[in-house]
Amino acid sequence: MFLSPAEAEVLAANEAFYRAFAARDLDAMDALWARRDAVACVHPGWEALRGRGEVMASWRAILGGNSAAKISCSSATASVMGDTALVLCTEGLDGDELIATNVFAREDNAWKLMHHHAGPVARRSARQATPRRPKGPPN
Amino acid sequence: MFLSPAEAEVLAANEAFYRAFAARDLDAMDALWARRDAVACVHPGWEALRGRGEVMASWRAILGGNSAAKISCSSATASVMGDTALVLCTEGLDGDELIATNVFAREDNAWKLMHHHAGPVARRSARQATPRRPKGPPN
Repeated sequence: MFLSPAEAEVLAANEAFYRAFAARDLDAMDALWARRDAVACVHPGWEALRGRGEVMASWRAILGGNSAAKISCSSATASVMGDTALVLCTEGLDGDELIATNVFAREDNAWKLMHHHAGPVARRSARQATPRRPKGPPN
Repeated sequence: MFLSPAEAEVLAANEAFYRAFAARDLDAMDALWARRDAVACVHPGWEALRGRGEVMASWRAILGGNSAAKISCSSATASVMGDTALVLCTEGLDGDELIATNVFAREDNAWKLMHHHAGPVARRSARQATPRRPKGPPN
């Protein structure tokens, strides 16, 4: 797969995010998030957190907790649109599979997280009784 | 709340998305999505769909289904970063509450969907046994 330099940078920032998460490294996590109010985060099952203060408070709670989260990231793809980039990846979390949307913004020449949204690949769809993924176009 | 013209445009595009969804209007839905390969979509409980073909096939299946989805959108906020914008909103779906991340890109002077990720506000967190939302900073 050919990656542009910007795509490679974004995927490296995405990997750094999961490294900080797995290592419970709050300082690294803080440094990875953009320094602006519009950051937001949706942890699986949580309501949306808006603003850097709320988002970092959630990471303090999560990374400081006692449960040993084994987080991993796979199948990451990046789309770069100017100074914004979108990463889609699969998270492995203690045997569960989740899908994450991570949005990055270029800030001081580095890619920083603007938004993280992780949700479970549930056994039932809340939207309709459809298989987890269509086998092919339905028509 | 003061909205910039771009933020108002993005929120209007977001509302158009939910109108097309509620009306099961596949043509309108198709017109709302960007004309590029990097579009992606995560329906609640589905695996990630990547590419315009897969994404539109999913909408054909969902909008053509028999179940009467009553979809609504509330609490939408928009962040505009150049020609990309991020919308976070709450979806009401047949009494369930979901959180959606919608990413828009400016294409031919109109805001088009690049990415939609909707997930349930679950009763349990897959990440930790923490309330749905912290009541305040934990420290």
